[in-house]
Amino acid sequence: MRVASIYEPVQEELDQVEATLDSVTRSDVPALHDMLTHVLSARGKRLRPTIALLAGRFGDYRPEQLVPLAASIELLHTATLVHDDVIDASDTRRGRPTANARHANAAAVMLGDYMFAHAADLICRTESIEVVKLFSKTLMAMASGELTQDMSAYEYGQNTMAYFGRIAGKTASLFATSAQGGAMVANASAEWTEALRTYGENVGMAFQIVDDILDFEGDEDEMGKPVGSDLMEGTLTLPALLLMERHPDDNPVKKLFEDRNGGDYLSQAIAMIGDSNILDESYAVAHDFRERAVAALSPLPDGPDRSALIEIAQFVSARRS
Amino acid sequence: MRVASIYEPVQEELDQVEATLDSVTRSDVPALHDMLTHVLSARGKRLRPTIALLAGRFGDYRPEQLVPLAASIELLHTATLVHDDVIDASDTRRGRPTANARHANAAAVMLGDYMFAHAADLICRTESIEVVKLFSKTLMAMASGELTQDMSAYEYGQNTMAYFGRIAGKTASLFATSAQGGAMVANASAEWTEALRTYGENVGMAFQIVDDILDFEGDEDEMGKPVGSDLMEGTLTLPALLLMERHPDDNPVKKLFEDRNGGDYLSQAIAMIGDSNILDESYAVAHDFRERAVAALSPLPDGPDRSALIEIAQFVSARRS
Repeated sequence: MRVASIYEPVQEELDQVEATLDSVTRSDVPALHDMLTHVLSARGKRLRPTIALLAGRFGDYRPEQLVPLAASIELLHTATLVHDDVIDASDTRRGRPTANARHANAAAVMLGDYMFAHAADLICRTESIEVVKLFSKTLMAMASGELTQDMSAYEYGQNTMAYFGRIAGKTASLFATSAQGGAMVANASAEWTEALRTYGENVGMAFQIVDDILDFEGDEDEMGKPVGSDLMEGTLTLPALLLMERHPDDNPVKKLFEDRNGGDYLSQAIAMIGDSNILDESYAVAHDFRERAVAALSPLPDGPDRSALIEIAQFVSARRS
Repeated sequence: MRVASIYEPVQEELDQVEATLDSVTRSDVPALHDMLTHVLSARGKRLRPTIALLAGRFGDYRPEQLVPLAASIELLHTATLVHDDVIDASDTRRGRPTANARHANAAAVMLGDYMFAHAADLICRTESIEVVKLFSKTLMAMASGELTQDMSAYEYGQNTMAYFGRIAGKTASLFATSAQGGAMVANASAEWTEALRTYGENVGMAFQIVDDILDFEGDEDEMGKPVGSDLMEGTLTLPALLLMERHPDDNPVKKLFEDRNGGDYLSQAIAMIGDSNILDESYAVAHDFRERAVAALSPLPDGPDRSALIEIAQFVSARRS
């Protein structure tokens, strides 16, 4: 699903972002070229670069710096997806990882590193050390958020505040930086820059919560992964946390985390969540963040750019894939 | 082995580099703090930061920018070591990776990413976009070199030129950037900056060649890994390439790569290399690079800084661990 009006004000620059991402795939190393083409051609919704470009319209509009910024953000995002996938490339043979799996894993790590480096190179085209610093801090927040999630896997005693902290780091920080970075490149006032950062942060929270809801109600084919995969990997997201709040003493999540073999406990948890109003309640939480995002935009002048940002907030909190 | 005179001219700044690396370990996330302390406390020889600090003495000496530069280089180097180790954390149970192995792998990837981000944050303290760009390009070269190595694992038809290309990317580039970055921070002349870069590049080549020699003749306890581990992982280094040149039609490396199960072929290759003058010849190649490094320094004024750089070149090409 692409909502044309979201992209309309910055369509030309988005085309330049695509051209920049295409140029990233050029490499003397044939294997690197193939891998980059593979991961960058699976076009996503390009929400982060779109937010950066739209934010860059509230001030001095400088596409020659905004386009590298937006491309860098998408590249950084894709690099984190590549690294997220590393742990899944573990085919085994006779109880040991195959050479192919070992090398696929190693290649994915190095590919992600290469993409981070290229993203850093692109961000330098803004010629702003402050923007580079913002990027470094963002990647620190993202890695730290992912790490916290990995370290707390299968830990039953977590609460929703810890969850919000994790997704603020691993997801909302890059949305916040997209909006703030665009505003910084445009030399927007401190008030507008802060407004845009707050907008981005809340859009990111809504986005991740909906992502986590879709893991429970989504269609396996549409999402590209089995329903309940977060729980299966020991990751507690909002729907599971709400289920645990309602059934503190005895619930299938607890048993699943003790047992770790999935099976019936996973199906039971999915069924209990589906039969309750937990997913509606989770959507309501996402809508709260959406409202905060929209409210943050109030200092900005009305017009197609602001409307597009509002529409993005609405889109992320209502999407079905 | 630490050669005191190498470090003497910049000992005070090296202590500040250690303090900076200590400060990197501070994190609100306890697990992150523990992991950072673990990987950063295993103190290496700090050759790269020492080269950066020494190079920074040929011009306007600015320790407040040189120290973060040197710390950033060491952090970047350590991050690449963390990522190199990722593929080894693959314990399996019933043919599937265990949750512990999965999460150890994921944690190592994220830890390395966090360290890259922190290195980028430190490098921003130079306040020089040109230095940040140099860093980005270096990480691209390193990742690309590692990737080429991984992709060509177990490929028998490689030659020494391909080997030199790989180690130039994965190792020499960071040594070159250490020297060049120091010179740039010091606003050294173009001639001196180029001289220092050439020095660093050649020191890095010598360093990696000796590293690869030590994999064949080193003591397992001293090196922390079994003798012949490169060959075992399908990586062709200079000694193996020289063996293949001398026995093109029939040699144990060829059989090892076809068979991939190590055993006798690995021992045979190690023995054939040990019984020949191949390691001496490999040392001679490292010494050539050392001589090029020393020659590159000729435009620089004589003194303890230049002497220390020369001593580093001699040390890396003669070290035994």
